[in-house]
Amino acid sequence: MASAPTSAEDSLIARYFKPIATDPGAFGLDDDAAILKARGEDIVVTTDAIVEGVHFLPDDPPDTIARKALRVNLSDLAAKGAQPAGFVLTLALRAVDDAWLAAFAHGLGSDAGLFGCPLLGGDTVSTPGPLTVSITAFGRVAEGRMVHRRGARPGDRVMVTGTIGDAALGLDVLKQGAVAAALADDAAAKAALVGRYRVPQPRNALANAVRDHASAAMDVSDGLAGDLAKLCTASGVSAAIDAPGIPLSEPAAALLARGATGIAAIVSGGDDYEILCAIPEEGLEAFAQAARLAGVAVASIGTFIAGSSAPTFLDSDGGEIALPRLSYSHF
Amino acid sequence: MASAPTSAEDSLIARYFKPIATDPGAFGLDDDAAILKARGEDIVVTTDAIVEGVHFLPDDPPDTIARKALRVNLSDLAAKGAQPAGFVLTLALRAVDDAWLAAFAHGLGSDAGLFGCPLLGGDTVSTPGPLTVSITAFGRVAEGRMVHRRGARPGDRVMVTGTIGDAALGLDVLKQGAVAAALADDAAAKAALVGRYRVPQPRNALANAVRDHASAAMDVSDGLAGDLAKLCTASGVSAAIDAPGIPLSEPAAALLARGATGIAAIVSGGDDYEILCAIPEEGLEAFAQAARLAGVAVASIGTFIAGSSAPTFLDSDGGEIALPRLSYSHF
Repeated sequence: MASAPTSAEDSLIARYFKPIATDPGAFGLDDDAAILKARGEDIVVTTDAIVEGVHFLPDDPPDTIARKALRVNLSDLAAKGAQPAGFVLTLALRAVDDAWLAAFAHGLGSDAGLFGCPLLGGDTVSTPGPLTVSITAFGRVAEGRMVHRRGARPGDRVMVTGTIGDAALGLDVLKQGAVAAALADDAAAKAALVGRYRVPQPRNALANAVRDHASAAMDVSDGLAGDLAKLCTASGVSAAIDAPGIPLSEPAAALLARGATGIAAIVSGGDDYEILCAIPEEGLEAFAQAARLAGVAVASIGTFIAGSSAPTFLDSDGGEIALPRLSYSHF
Repeated sequence: MASAPTSAEDSLIARYFKPIATDPGAFGLDDDAAILKARGEDIVVTTDAIVEGVHFLPDDPPDTIARKALRVNLSDLAAKGAQPAGFVLTLALRAVDDAWLAAFAHGLGSDAGLFGCPLLGGDTVSTPGPLTVSITAFGRVAEGRMVHRRGARPGDRVMVTGTIGDAALGLDVLKQGAVAAALADDAAAKAALVGRYRVPQPRNALANAVRDHASAAMDVSDGLAGDLAKLCTASGVSAAIDAPGIPLSEPAAALLARGATGIAAIVSGGDDYEILCAIPEEGLEAFAQAARLAGVAVASIGTFIAGSSAPTFLDSDGGEIALPRLSYSHF
């Protein structure tokens, strides 16, 4: 990014992004690169892109698109036990729309401030295709302390933060699907679910507790069932999940009770951005207390067990729930 | 990136990218994030995306697309005086084409090895639009030693590496423009220019010399004239350039002599990926010697002068050359 106003690209960067690039390492976006200070810690690097029509809808508000792009990366940092350190942004745009860019930059700057994750640099390119927002985010964690997907042991509890399934239900509302029809008269429930789709709530407040107590962790982005399967594979374990124990929001629980959605859809829907982690029995109490102090709801939904089979989701009678697909896949 | 083969996305990552992700900090692409060790140095961060139809052509060979995506970032690291430390990749694909992906990953892995810049992680997403390759690259430089755009002083020499203008001429060849017509019988010249467009030659071998001797530097990516104007603005200086001293390749010089291209097109064409830097008089000899040892051609093309006007490009009679546009702009 550059400030000399020799091109329209430079002036859009100067106008919209320079004001939010306040970190000294960003050099006011006047240089070709940024500086990230390591301060003797490990730098955790994660990258996630969101594509118009795939991860967000063309008429989603620009500030929520910006927030989602940053938050999906913040969620990875939280699950790894790292504290946000900054991010770089690549924005592929069809055209320059000043009102859109102003709102996008405002949302991005607000979240950068809220989560202490400053904009360090970026690239703006033109594309004839869909708007694509690609973010690489950096975190800091004490040397060797990043929490991995591998590490869960038989006997560890399977814990998740927040509630599961809301974002997928919110997407169904936006697409005028069965959920929208079932909630026809309940504007508040629809807004709550849509909000969960558009603006994830990354659990960065829980990062230190994850770092201190989890034997393994990841964020749930492609569906709980599929992501749990990945964690199990990486750890060389299996898991038994008590499906009625999976935390649901009020709208999701009501839709499930009415039969307007099913547990299979809830555990295989994407975009939750909650933390899934393995907590050894001896750390349970300390983890729960740290979560209370952080203001993040956590729930035990099952147990890691020995074995290499896919995790099983059990209903209240102990019967195995069939899952037609485990998670969202791009291809 | 994840390895558990629960989706087509995961299996393409496992098949094509895991084999080239050999750095311990990549965790075999089995985790949600990578680790970059700082080793007490500053981490230099740069990000550049390339878009099909904008930065490369749909029928460019996949290995050259991969190399270009990495090399445009390596070029930024070189110009900042930093040594490559690794990169993350975001690939937005319309569909999975195994032959294409195998060649792309091969080119990427070869260059990662050649430049000592390992793949640390990434994200693969589907897009209905053009193929987009977004890379964030990391370098290491001794604390506080990154070379900036600001810092050039009146009297410093304006130096560039390699040759200027070839890539823009190569693009014209690929687009069957006037250059292609002028070179109809000269397949070798056409191949040389196209090669410069498709596979830039980043000057990483010169990074330490730039760090030790340059008062300011940047890479030339959007055209020499526009990029020099940016460096001048950042440094608060102007510059007088001796246009006949600008280093040209044999094909470019021959095209210029025949009137098949003009100096204005050469200094405002994009995609050079050479280093532009300011070298104080007292460091000239040491810089030239370091460049010889590194095997990188460097040329003095003018002098930074006091003032705030745009840099002037002078012909052999000392007359100012009119530049209709300074550089490539996306918007």
